[in-house]
Amino acid sequence: MRIVVTNCNTTRSMTDEIVRGARAAAAPGTTITGLTPAWGPESAEGWLDSYLSAAAVLDTLRGHREPYDAVVLAGFGEHGREGARELVATPVIDITEAAAHLACLLGRRYGVITTLDRTRGQIEDSLHTAGVAQNCAAVVGTGLGVLDLGDERRTTEAFLTAAVRARDAGAEVLVLGCAGMTGLQRTVGERLGMPVVDGVGAAVKLAESLIALDLATSRSGGYARPLPKRRSWSAPA
Amino acid sequence: MRIVVTNCNTTRSMTDEIVRGARAAAAPGTTITGLTPAWGPESAEGWLDSYLSAAAVLDTLRGHREPYDAVVLAGFGEHGREGARELVATPVIDITEAAAHLACLLGRRYGVITTLDRTRGQIEDSLHTAGVAQNCAAVVGTGLGVLDLGDERRTTEAFLTAAVRARDAGAEVLVLGCAGMTGLQRTVGERLGMPVVDGVGAAVKLAESLIALDLATSRSGGYARPLPKRRSWSAPA
Amino acid sequence: MRIVVTNCNTTRSMTDEIVRGARAAAAPGTTITGLTPAWGPESAEGWLDSYLSAAAVLDTLRGHREPYDAVVLAGFGEHGREGARELVATPVIDITEAAAHLACLLGRRYGVITTLDRTRGQIEDSLHTAGVAQNCAAVVGTGLGVLDLGDERRTTEAFLTAAVRARDAGAEVLVLGCAGMTGLQRTVGERLGMPVVDGVGAAVKLAESLIALDLATSRSGGYARPLPKRRSWSAPA
Amino acid sequence: MRIVVTNCNTTRSMTDEIVRGARAAAAPGTTITGLTPAWGPESAEGWLDSYLSAAAVLDTLRGHREPYDAVVLAGFGEHGREGARELVATPVIDITEAAAHLACLLGRRYGVITTLDRTRGQIEDSLHTAGVAQNCAAVVGTGLGVLDLGDERRTTEAFLTAAVRARDAGAEVLVLGCAGMTGLQRTVGERLGMPVVDGVGAAVKLAESLIALDLATSRSGGYARPLPKRRSWSAPA
Amino acid sequence: MRIVVTNCNTTRSMTDEIVRGARAAAAPGTTITGLTPAWGPESAEGWLDSYLSAAAVLDTLRGHREPYDAVVLAGFGEHGREGARELVATPVIDITEAAAHLACLLGRRYGVITTLDRTRGQIEDSLHTAGVAQNCAAVVGTGLGVLDLGDERRTTEAFLTAAVRARDAGAEVLVLGCAGMTGLQRTVGERLGMPVVDGVGAAVKLAESLIALDLATSRSGGYARPLPKRRSWSAPA
Amino acid sequence: MRIVVTNCNTTRSMTDEIVRGARAAAAPGTTITGLTPAWGPESAEGWLDSYLSAAAVLDTLRGHREPYDAVVLAGFGEHGREGARELVATPVIDITEAAAHLACLLGRRYGVITTLDRTRGQIEDSLHTAGVAQNCAAVVGTGLGVLDLGDERRTTEAFLTAAVRARDAGAEVLVLGCAGMTGLQRTVGERLGMPVVDGVGAAVKLAESLIALDLATSRSGGYARPLPKRRSWSAPA
Repeated sequence: MRIVVTNCNTTRSMTDEIVRGARAAAAPGTTITGLTPAWGPESAEGWLDSYLSAAAVLDTLRGHREPYDAVVLAGFGEHGREGARELVATPVIDITEAAAHLACLLGRRYGVITTLDRTRGQIEDSLHTAGVAQNCAAVVGTGLGVLDLGDERRTTEAFLTAAVRARDAGAEVLVLGCAGMTGLQRTVGERLGMPVVDGVGAAVKLAESLIALDLATSRSGGYARPLPKRRSWSAPA
Repeated sequence: MRIVVTNCNTTRSMTDEIVRGARAAAAPGTTITGLTPAWGPESAEGWLDSYLSAAAVLDTLRGHREPYDAVVLAGFGEHGREGARELVATPVIDITEAAAHLACLLGRRYGVITTLDRTRGQIEDSLHTAGVAQNCAAVVGTGLGVLDLGDERRTTEAFLTAAVRARDAGAEVLVLGCAGMTGLQRTVGERLGMPVVDGVGAAVKLAESLIALDLATSRSGGYARPLPKRRSWSAPA
Repeated sequence: MRIVVTNCNTTRSMTDEIVRGARAAAAPGTTITGLTPAWGPESAEGWLDSYLSAAAVLDTLRGHREPYDAVVLAGFGEHGREGARELVATPVIDITEAAAHLACLLGRRYGVITTLDRTRGQIEDSLHTAGVAQNCAAVVGTGLGVLDLGDERRTTEAFLTAAVRARDAGAEVLVLGCAGMTGLQRTVGERLGMPVVDGVGAAVKLAESLIALDLATSRSGGYARPLPKRRSWSAPA
Repeated sequence: MRIVVTNCNTTRSMTDEIVRGARAAAAPGTTITGLTPAWGPESAEGWLDSYLSAAAVLDTLRGHREPYDAVVLAGFGEHGREGARELVATPVIDITEAAAHLACLLGRRYGVITTLDRTRGQIEDSLHTAGVAQNCAAVVGTGLGVLDLGDERRTTEAFLTAAVRARDAGAEVLVLGCAGMTGLQRTVGERLGMPVVDGVGAAVKLAESLIALDLATSRSGGYARPLPKRRSWSAPA
Repeated sequence: MRIVVTNCNTTRSMTDEIVRGARAAAAPGTTITGLTPAWGPESAEGWLDSYLSAAAVLDTLRGHREPYDAVVLAGFGEHGREGARELVATPVIDITEAAAHLACLLGRRYGVITTLDRTRGQIEDSLHTAGVAQNCAAVVGTGLGVLDLGDERRTTEAFLTAAVRARDAGAEVLVLGCAGMTGLQRTVGERLGMPVVDGVGAAVKLAESLIALDLATSRSGGYARPLPKRRSWSAPA
Repeated sequence: MRIVVTNCNTTRSMTDEIVRGARAAAAPGTTITGLTPAWGPESAEGWLDSYLSAAAVLDTLRGHREPYDAVVLAGFGEHGREGARELVATPVIDITEAAAHLACLLGRRYGVITTLDRTRGQIEDSLHTAGVAQNCAAVVGTGLGVLDLGDERRTTEAFLTAAVRARDAGAEVLVLGCAGMTGLQRTVGERLGMPVVDGVGAAVKLAESLIALDLATSRSGGYARPLPKRRSWSAPA
């Protein structure tokens, strides 16, 4: 199986980190190809970034000519999911929904721990439109920006604090609400004695599942293929 | 008051039609400036178009240097609203939410009549995230594409048929779910004896209302101004 | 445009205060006429008062013979809105819904700050039936009665305390849940750096908007004109 | 036990019919006293009537000096319930909520069959605020006015037609959405093979239940006793 | 009237306590018969116990040959309710729903105080499927096991602490979320000045009400009588 | 990986059919062991059967001594899921939730096609408590009993008819609401041009996913291991 994983921002080191997480989760026969948008924000932290990222990721997929069997969108809470479902011929899995789907199987309520508080609204909306918001007990921000996650000790402490707040709000399972934080999964889980779901790994397994079951995106309704028409993807020079 | 109205697609004739509708609704002292994105889809009909349109509209607003007091986003059910709220210093009104807000004041339930059935999901999501979905009885498609609306008789008949379905689903008020259909408002309303709300006019009045009351977008939560960072708005040449 | 504003209680000084707020919000060509019910409670603070007020306000509107273009019901969270929509020929705007509609345009979640805690249930119900409860994060009482609002310093402190609770519950925009508190709007907003919506001003602008757009209450469903029948509005002598 | 049953309109013959139904349901030791408002509408069919009725019924209860143990409000979908809970010292049961509570015990979904279509909104709101709307599959109007119910054959046919629509919408239990239709209960139930709940009987049994269990309205929140203040219940002469 | 009350566990002393509570609530002509399952858990505290208990209670009812007019299921939050509705010819009332129905009549929001925190999910689900979850403000655990309730002082203190938490979450009425705690009802109610509903008493009164009104479980939908087929109720020897 | 699949009834041929479906979906290294309860109903069609089945399946799992890595519960809409999560040390996947989780990834709304209409309520409740009901457009019965599914032509026609009803209600993806119907999946999908999800296959892939990601049921809340106590699983001889 050939899975394409798209980063939602232009930072290649983050794509590399995402690809490492995806490969760790992939089955033996699965190949992972990471794509970094050639344009867009260097990190997605807010609505403006998210809409810019959505168009850039769709443009990236549009231009990707190698064959593949599924797409994983590796931007937690970012826009574009439904557009990718229209655009590409294969199943599309967003890491936001993927983590939530698996979390629902492990406990009665789950909580999402994410970076900046300002991204909470996007995540809540994304879970809602994906149909899995009901059992989400809380989306909690750590106050850390995407590009601040390098300081491991500070990051761990911030995520533990947020995780305790999610647990107090009723969460029995935690979701890491940011791509590229695979290391945190083990630490937070062990310290709190709760399962922690990473969206990238979850999405890879769901993508493999759909491929194996030969299930494809429905074309009978909202995700019909795009109508042929003039579309320009950047301002004229 | 100076209101900027953004078309969601690159078709200038549609911008002109939108501007005509906006001016018809505007108060004497209000000036309307229409903006047409330099890139994006020629019409927005589906998720891919909508995300492409969102980035193009945000890019258009980013580059607009003339002063203004409010922005009206004239794409029914299209994405980008929250990004525009972050980006610009003035209030932002989306015609989707605007029509729904006024419709709630006129009857117990409202229905939306729109173009292609495939856009229904986007409209439902947009009403939900705007907080006004509860009293929406139905979103009904006419099966007409955005650029097919030129044939007046056919368009009117299609909208009347859809309107009857919305009424049978409980709607007491109708919302025209497409920009640039101002003419239909009167015809459909008279034939069915129901108030019909056009989003462009509604958004202009709500924009004037916020300006008059000196109310601005909250910066204390999800709509804080965008963080300074590298963002590129198109692929490198 | 001629807007009639009804106080929900028999206290004329409160009508005067409401009229002042309405005039401050009105467009140049708009005239504001305040009506004080000849019967009912001296202040509306609870369900009994609210139902008594509803009948008295409807009786007041029934007896008002001067022509007008819209009605603003200036009782926050009070009953009667739908009855007025049936009764009068013009649009009817309730300050509760009006404030919520505008608040939804300014932030992702809003909070209502009101007087006595006992009125919270009525406000929640009124927002729900108006279709705008979804994005309400909290309705918070200050513990002050309607007629205690004269002590400005105490009132301001109590509202600031309640506003902080609403913000902590997720509100990004505040709504003043009581008519006649126009002064508080600026103070609370400046101290907390959040937009604050006053229902009276909001309702006046929405009323002007509906009049300008020539939109009237739907008669095709629940707000059909009252059936002719015997109704007596007070006990026989 | 002494139960006071209030008609919501001024038509004494309807009070008599309600009292008959209440007595048929009452336990041996229970006495039923019917009260007819001295003012208000001759029948309650719409929002204006309902708010007028609410004040008249509260005024009626305010003036009733004989001791009693519970109040039954016999206006289906009419306002005033929460005001009566504040006002009187005993439990208060509204026939709308009473029928719904018992219906929930008899099947997975229930449907309400009522008179004019215009009253559906009030009933839906009343069920919602009472906390029992979730399992209501439909509220269906018969098109008959309250005072048209005398023609037994026509009434029966209209209710059967409406009942079939409710059943098709998923109802397994029917609720008669109007006081004074006790006769219909048996006919409709037998013809459709479904249990049919009459609100008056249901409310009498729930009132007896609360009295027997010595349960009283909570005063710790929204139903605290009314504050002492000036209230006038009719216009000055 | 003859009411059968089933304990959800095999502990006879708890059946006795439940029967005492039921008899205290019953009308003069009502006889109460307590049934203790011959198999199942000694106490029901969690999902495994609840499903085991459901089958054992259904087996108990299946084997009960004496005539009766209604069944009360005296396991708070336990499964089996809908199965009993299918199985027996009479009305079936679960103490969970019964307490919630009466609580809705006494205040705007109610709270449930129960034993171990682990049972909260079952109670929430049971209230939801019964259609009465909307006005539940909180389900609060005391941390006490079912068989720990013997220490009266400790039990009372634990319930008072939990009750205060429920009140702070908005509850105006309390529900005792465990059978066999009839004594606590008075103590907690008096200390907090709030009505406290015991499910066993509530269910007895609702059962008597349905019997008196001659209302039976609907057979037209989900609660049709079980299909004839082979069912074995225990492993072959 | 070793996955145990439990049939919900005592019919071995159905277990065989389920095991065939599970093996068809399983990855190369996965072994499937089918378990048939030694007691319970011969088919599960209604609430009584479902509760009886739940206890029998839990008893079956309790007695299964071979090591395994995950459990798949192959009863569509049947009870017991949360009890199995408490009981066994491995992840537990119910085919109801599994099919819904994957369906959400393939279209905006899904519909369930099931056997008898009487089982619809159980399925709706099961989807709700699993947290995936939001995007379910309809649960449609075919009128066929579980043991009637042998007649292939009749079964296919009945499922196609039901599928069209689900599509008309908004479904873009179909879920086969019964175990052991793997053949239907292809036929219905091809005839309607919609993806069709079979719960058994979906559950096997989700089980493999959780095992691969080393994710286990949370023990920090409602799914803590059962308390040690006396439990008897059948009536004393």
